[in-house]
Formats: sequence, C-alpha cells, structure tokens
Amino acid sequence: MQNSKCGCTAGSKAETSKAETSFHPADFSALKFENGLIPAIVQDADSKEVLMFAFMNEEALKLTLDTKIAHYWSRSRQSLWKKGETSGHFQRVEQIYFDCDADALLLTVKQTGGACHNGYKSCFYRTIDGAVVGEKVFDEKDVY
Amino acid sequence: MQNSKCGCTAGSKAETSKAETSFHPADFSALKFENGLIPAIVQDADSKEVLMFAFMNEEALKLTLDTKIAHYWSRSRQSLWKKGETSGHFQRVEQIYFDCDADALLLTVKQTGGACHNGYKSCFYRTIDGAVVGEKVFDEKDVY
Repeated sequence: MQNSKCGCTAGSKAETSKAETSFHPADFSALKFENGLIPAIVQDADSKEVLMFAFMNEEALKLTLDTKIAHYWSRSRQSLWKKGETSGHFQRVEQIYFDCDADALLLTVKQTGGACHNGYKSCFYRTIDGAVVGEKVFDEKDVY
Repeated sequence: MQNSKCGCTAGSKAETSKAETSFHPADFSALKFENGLIPAIVQDADSKEVLMFAFMNEEALKLTLDTKIAHYWSRSRQSLWKKGETSGHFQRVEQIYFDCDADALLLTVKQTGGACHNGYKSCFYRTIDGAVVGEKVFDEKDVY
C-alpha cells in the first residue's frame, strides 16, 4: 500500500458469500502487477505468523487459485516456483486477500514443515539487531 | 524471499540479548535495498493481523529505528512518509525482523486507529473473490 487514496477496483462484492465455495475470482485483471509481478505476503493460517515474502506473476496466481497450493515467481531463477517442490514443504492456501490499492496480496496457508530454506518455520527469524528468535523446525541439510 | 539459498549476512549475533534495550542495529548495510527500497510488511503486534504493505528507503528505516514510529517511502508521492502524519493513525514499532535473504522487513506495531485509508483496520480487507471481510474502525471522511 502506498499513501494514495485506495482504488478498490478489484473483485466483485456480488460474490461476498462465495469465499469458501468459489475460491477463484471472477476477474483479477484489476490487480496491479508491476513489471508482471505482484508482492505476496504469506501468513500461517493458524498461528498468524508471517512466514515469508515472495512475488507472483499471473500464471503463479492462477495456478495457486486452481490447485490451492502456493506457486510463486522466482526472480532469482526467473521461473515459476511451486513452493515445496524440492523440500516437500508445500503451502496449502486457505485464503487470498488483496489490499486497498490492489497491488499486494496476502495468503493465509497451512505450511508443511517450514517456510524457510534455513530450517526455520518463518523466513523472518531474526530481529533487526541480529537476534535469532525464530523456531527451527527442520535441518535444512536433510532437505536440500 | 526468493527460492535461493539464504544469505544470512545482516545483523550480528553478538547482540542477541539487546533486542529490547538496543533497538538500533549496529549495521544494516547488509540489508538488500532494491533501487533504494526494501519491502516492509506491517503486522499488528497483538492480534497478528497483517495491516499493510509498504516500502522503506534507508532514511525511512533510520527514522523508524530512531523514533520507533513507522516511516515509509511513498512511491506514489516520491517522498518520505511518516505514517499517521495526516490521520493521526501512527504506528508505534515494537520490533523489526528481516528475512533470510535480507531483502524484506517485517514490522510489528501498535496501530492507532486503522492502517487503511478506507477506514479499515487492515488494508487487506477483501478476499480475492471480492468479499469484504475486514473490520471498519473509522470513517475515512472524518480523517482525510
């Protein structure tokens, strides 16, 4: 979100009661992809812990909506990225939200294992002054 | 976070016990700013609700660390943005985390009023299929 008035153009209020049964939006063309990408914040559906931050392109979002398994766009590899493909640590998506400016997404997920390559539940396992505060949930050497 | 091995270069483990007393990091030069900006996820410190998504430049991060009031960089206005300057809806920062790749921040905050210009507690008040599910906490016409 930026400090501008909100656009509030994406989605359709007519579908308010279908969140559970109809996961796929009628139209997400109103979402603002910047250079083909939209930021995605990923939050544990139960603990509410923020797990990671990534980007999606339209294909990743479509695949996520169709399969309910989180897909992203890897900017470092420049390729579609099914989270958990290597590690088995998939993310089952419970819900997707978009923000007032329609330029950021929030996914709530059921995370298998941990979200972080370093073996932590969340990628945000360190405070700004260097304290390691996150929960280590697997040994990354066994997985990657 | 991207699907690469994590850098884990920012911060200093020597300071692990100073999170509460010494909020300012010894060095955040290891943080990866892209075109001068780093994404910042903002989460309510109590409810764990994700409130908004914004960007910081180095100055915004320094001001946030120094004042414990969240500052961002408004890309739309191309200027420093002290959140709440117009609305009074400031964010008192409790903690700042950085992710494994050191290219994203997570702030936990005490939010005065609501984070969203549209009067909602969180900017993520709609699901992808258009359902409005967020909590309206103020009338934006009274504030802006």
